[in-house]
Amino acid sequence: MAHRIAVIAGDGIGTEVMPEGIRALEAAAKRFNIDLEFTTFEFGSCDYYLEHGQMMPDDWFEQLKDFDALFYGAVGWPEKVPDHISLWGSLLQFRRRFDQYINLRPCKLMPGIQSPLAGRKPGDIDFYVVRENTEGEYSSIGGKMFEGTEREIVIQETVMSRTGVDRVLKYAFDLAQTRPRKKLTSATKSNGISITMPYWDERVLEMAKQYPDISVDKFHIDILTANFVLHPDWFDVVVGSNLFGDILSDLGPACTGTIGIAPSANINPEGKFPSLFEPVHGSAPDIAGKGIANPIGQIWSGAMMLEHLGYKEAADAMVTAIENVLSEGDSQVVTRDVGGQGTTESLGRAIADTI
Amino acid sequence: MAHRIAVIAGDGIGTEVMPEGIRALEAAAKRFNIDLEFTTFEFGSCDYYLEHGQMMPDDWFEQLKDFDALFYGAVGWPEKVPDHISLWGSLLQFRRRFDQYINLRPCKLMPGIQSPLAGRKPGDIDFYVVRENTEGEYSSIGGKMFEGTEREIVIQETVMSRTGVDRVLKYAFDLAQTRPRKKLTSATKSNGISITMPYWDERVLEMAKQYPDISVDKFHIDILTANFVLHPDWFDVVVGSNLFGDILSDLGPACTGTIGIAPSANINPEGKFPSLFEPVHGSAPDIAGKGIANPIGQIWSGAMMLEHLGYKEAADAMVTAIENVLSEGDSQVVTRDVGGQGTTESLGRAIADTI
Ligand SMILES: CC(C)[C@H](C(=O)O)[C@@H](O)C(=O)O
Ligand SMILES: CC(C)[C@H](C(=O)O)[C@@H](O)C(=O)O
Repeated sequence: MAHRIAVIAGDGIGTEVMPEGIRALEAAAKRFNIDLEFTTFEFGSCDYYLEHGQMMPDDWFEQLKDFDALFYGAVGWPEKVPDHISLWGSLLQFRRRFDQYINLRPCKLMPGIQSPLAGRKPGDIDFYVVRENTEGEYSSIGGKMFEGTEREIVIQETVMSRTGVDRVLKYAFDLAQTRPRKKLTSATKSNGISITMPYWDERVLEMAKQYPDISVDKFHIDILTANFVLHPDWFDVVVGSNLFGDILSDLGPACTGTIGIAPSANINPEGKFPSLFEPVHGSAPDIAGKGIANPIGQIWSGAMMLEHLGYKEAADAMVTAIENVLSEGDSQVVTRDVGGQGTTESLGRAIADTI
Repeated sequence: MAHRIAVIAGDGIGTEVMPEGIRALEAAAKRFNIDLEFTTFEFGSCDYYLEHGQMMPDDWFEQLKDFDALFYGAVGWPEKVPDHISLWGSLLQFRRRFDQYINLRPCKLMPGIQSPLAGRKPGDIDFYVVRENTEGEYSSIGGKMFEGTEREIVIQETVMSRTGVDRVLKYAFDLAQTRPRKKLTSATKSNGISITMPYWDERVLEMAKQYPDISVDKFHIDILTANFVLHPDWFDVVVGSNLFGDILSDLGPACTGTIGIAPSANINPEGKFPSLFEPVHGSAPDIAGKGIANPIGQIWSGAMMLEHLGYKEAADAMVTAIENVLSEGDSQVVTRDVGGQGTTESLGRAIADTI
């Protein structure tokens, strides 16, 4: 039976890296005999917004809910549509309505990639950031008062639920159990953010009781970001709230030099709704239209999607192909950001061929 | 006329580095003919809490409010008192009640200090983080509902006021104007945190109109942390909310390798209340009692205090003394964290002597 994949390329370089993501997936599908069926959607982009006054049609949920996965490019083009409108009208809707409560991002120092950290080699950095993806600091409750006057105030509520916190912690502990080091680090800020964050800590302690084999530590987010830079080798699985996970899952890839190529998965673990796979990089309006964007983030996200669909071997083959092409580092093939003169397409083709 | 300084050493290594901070200040006072009068307080420490059931006496405000400055060590010892109690009972009270709405931290790559970032030399990194220090994410409004049940939720409100936002922005723009590059970077997350953060952006745009000579940019906090690692040379003055400023002002010093020696100032610019000067490092229970803590953060904070009191020349002399002692790097003098075998006292004395 075919796996039905909804494809939304979005904005900017999203539209350029998407074809390479699909090319690589098709290569893997062929080699491992997987039946993938891609259906492309135009909505979820700023151009769609400019034409229709909204980011997606009213029935987007109905249109997408029965797919097996969403393969997503990047959304946002601030000169066309303010970010909080484009994002809340698309990506953040998917995460919430499809209850993709896990955002998972590997941070791995890859061969051929220069880490900005002194003296770190492939193998030195290899951890996952698990981010809560539906509640917390990204709330839609709050507002403004005394608008336009000197007394103006704005308020926004952070909301954490036991359901929301426990399920992301459970996922993170389970993931830690599959890893050789069996180590979990919790991101907190309970010394300053004195209501929600002590609650988060409390739930971590509670959950830890069920996982006596996992070694657990916690850091306040300020010193944790410092430790990503100073001691990236300390980490195995790092779990954080929506905001803290967001920060750590950009900083982590930056420390591995892979911010332009890192993948991410927005997962509904129960499979009740489709999960969504997207590169960490955004739509990058500044380099859009030049054909020089690195497609690896999109391809690697495709690998995460295959793994999610149950094809671990095929996923591994895709990641190995990425590693091999990066190791070779042929300057005619790899893109500018990793030191070559290649194009989105040359790099994408090389990876697909290797698969 | 004497400047009256209230001294609160606090917990852990706070009590060890404080004498060296005072030693250096006394050396500078002598050389530059400044009259400093120190008064020591025992409260504001976890031991005080264990004895009295509160971090400070009821009349702490009265006792401290007429000092010219507070010279602070570090507070917190989680095994004795939970952090959110010790911090909200002391440091965060000072910041609020004394309206120290600016938290200022220099991030500077110093001679003799190894940056964890590849290929960065002294001079490459030199910026300030200006943090809002009284409101924002560190609010005391919120609570818990359905406690102890599956439906449990906790809510905490982020509160930003026009007064609060504008005054920190004004300080940051003014600071940028004194710097050669005249550049200001705003930390935001308006694409995800959709109520307070767009407001922050709006006020930045508004304030920028009054400073046409300052070049202004903004980054979302996730990619901003990445850029601290990838492009620390981009930054000159970085301004952020209470939480974002907190994160950036630990990450910045980490990138300059100076997390153990960085200083900070909590400033009430109008001088209506005393300002507070403290090292960035915390109380570090793990190394407390061994006499090996690096006293430079405390000494450098003392320099910021002198500058605040109007003695720029004396402050510069203190910083130069720090730089000179670090450049020499005598391993019998400097502490372990910077590659030597010296003690808190040997390093403190060397700096005082150099002054
Ligand atoms: C100890 C803690 C509450 C404090 C803060 O978050 O403000 C500290 O990290 C700081 O930056 O001074
Ligand atoms: C674009 C933005 C709203 C989004 C987020 O903050 O979640 C992005 O940074 C991400 O991490 O996927």
